Amino acid sequence: MIKAYAAFEAKGELKPFEYDPGKLKQDEVEIDVLYCGICHSDLSVIDNDWGFSNYPLVPGHEVVGKIAKVGENVKKFSEGQIVGLGWHSSYCNECEQCKSGNQNLCAGQQATIVGHYGGFADKVRAQAESVVAIPDGVDLESAGPLFCGGITVFNPLVQFDVKPTDKVAVIGIGGLGHMALEFLNAWGCEVTAFTSSENKRKEALDLGAHHTLNSRDEKEIEAAAGSFDMIISTVNVTLIWELYLNTLKPKGRLHFVGATLEPLNIGAFSLITGQRSISGSPVGSPGTIAKMLDFTKLHQIKPVIEKYKFEDVNKAIERLRSGKAHYRIVLYH
Amino acid sequence: MIKAYAAFEAKGELKPFEYDPGKLKQDEVEIDVLYCGICHSDLSVIDNDWGFSNYPLVPGHEVVGKIAKVGENVKKFSEGQIVGLGWHSSYCNECEQCKSGNQNLCAGQQATIVGHYGGFADKVRAQAESVVAIPDGVDLESAGPLFCGGITVFNPLVQFDVKPTDKVAVIGIGGLGHMALEFLNAWGCEVTAFTSSENKRKEALDLGAHHTLNSRDEKEIEAAAGSFDMIISTVNVTLIWELYLNTLKPKGRLHFVGATLEPLNIGAFSLITGQRSISGSPVGSPGTIAKMLDFTKLHQIKPVIEKYKFEDVNKAIERLRSGKAHYRIVLYH
Repeated sequence: MIKAYAAFEAKGELKPFEYDPGKLKQDEVEIDVLYCGICHSDLSVIDNDWGFSNYPLVPGHEVVGKIAKVGENVKKFSEGQIVGLGWHSSYCNECEQCKSGNQNLCAGQQATIVGHYGGFADKVRAQAESVVAIPDGVDLESAGPLFCGGITVFNPLVQFDVKPTDKVAVIGIGGLGHMALEFLNAWGCEVTAFTSSENKRKEALDLGAHHTLNSRDEKEIEAAAGSFDMIISTVNVTLIWELYLNTLKPKGRLHFVGATLEPLNIGAFSLITGQRSISGSPVGSPGTIAKMLDFTKLHQIKPVIEKYKFEDVNKAIERLRSGKAHYRIVLYH
Repeated sequence: MIKAYAAFEAKGELKPFEYDPGKLKQDEVEIDVLYCGICHSDLSVIDNDWGFSNYPLVPGHEVVGKIAKVGENVKKFSEGQIVGLGWHSSYCNECEQCKSGNQNLCAGQQATIVGHYGGFADKVRAQAESVVAIPDGVDLESAGPLFCGGITVFNPLVQFDVKPTDKVAVIGIGGLGHMALEFLNAWGCEVTAFTSSENKRKEALDLGAHHTLNSRDEKEIEAAAGSFDMIISTVNVTLIWELYLNTLKPKGRLHFVGATLEPLNIGAFSLITGQRSISGSPVGSPGTIAKMLDFTKLHQIKPVIEKYKFEDVNKAIERLRSGKAHYRIVLYH
């Protein structure tokens, strides 16, 4: 039996939940969970914000653990190996996207916490293809958040071929944004953080931003017209997007990893005159996660975390809901 | 004196207009106009739709002509050479964009027909940097429309590195769209035209489309989900953009060269899940225009035109306003 914490209804408290995972599939591994991050998307799924949750629901998709069992067809892992598991717990491995290393865009992907039991547990299973080895030298305690929040902001740098000579801005210095600043600084870019308070300003500079702009000062943003090659937006609220678009250089890109539910309300003219792009992306592929882990190891990049014991999972969730977490929360046994 | 046709007020008829161009600048050429296309943007500027027109206004920015005079610092042209002039009649030649071959994105660019007298005339002047030699073997009578409409749809293929193995769709089979089909077919792509009538369907297939989809049939568009690497929209009306976005493959791009004035109303979620982009672009740089001309010569690509004499310019404009022009109009002396 696997001992987990589950929500039994939308917005419900998590309660202990045991389940029998059955026989391990040939292409699966079983992971002894050491740490598991809590992501905003865990809350969205617990709350059924996106309408596709099912219960009992075991959250947790920022898993760091140790391989406990290996399916008979799995060659890439052996018992005792330290690994991580993120938003996806399997792919079809047959489609055009899977075959070209873009498993994260596979239409047949399985979300770790929707129709599959996640990592708020002593063990979790997943298709070996979706699990990534963590290299020695990566801090395990803080590594969990890399597997969803981290890869979400690292992935666009790879996908859109961001250059170290690029000037990149980040909107929203929180769970995702703080890692974006760390990555971009190590990437060699000139990094600007849009921040809303003096406290955040100082933190942003400490995390790797070279400059800050006050996101509550329209004139300051207007004055930054034509400054950035790329802006990464991590927020899920609606801003005056045309204002931010105008801070892009010609050929610049406004990239969304935070999903605002309202339409973006951007005019075609603003895109045409400066050959600008708007885009979005989800988490990355296992290959890109592996690249990110090597990069974090080399540059000693760590998510900034708060720790809670697994038995205090509901307190931890409350903390995350409060918006005060600084910046990611990790559960440990 | 240069003999031209000018509008003297917004939406006004064109009337004969003579002006003294003064001494030829060192970096300019004077062109004897042989042909000049009429573009929708000529109408927009005549009508002051974009609010920055000034009068008297000499339209015409799809010029084919012969070099008549060469400024003393101009080395790239000599008298008698056949050239074309498009939307831009000069650049700053100093900025980051100019220095990197993206003069079309120069903030100091001069529009040929705004604050400068255009090609509805016997002669027109322009900075040599903005003028492009037309290679022998390009049909001159129909070449004018390449310099604005043509380059507008050719440019994205270069800018976004469209591959011959890509599947590309075109929305709006008119002045711009018909050239897009011709270019894309020669580019090696699998080409789909969104068309609204049986007549247009046949024309689209003749122009180079391999497939058509009925733009008035939502179910047919829904059934094409995940089909295209890129869609080029040439229309200036608002469509149900989310519907078209859904016909893109993961990593696909919905690209606007037609400017709808209403906001695009696209949700971030639609971009994030499939790593999709929305973008826009204006006309191309002189370097890209030169590439286009070589490509049209090799593949014998010609805009489909109707011809009017210069003295019938008002009739020609009426024809274009009627929406019945098939597909571009060219004035000749």
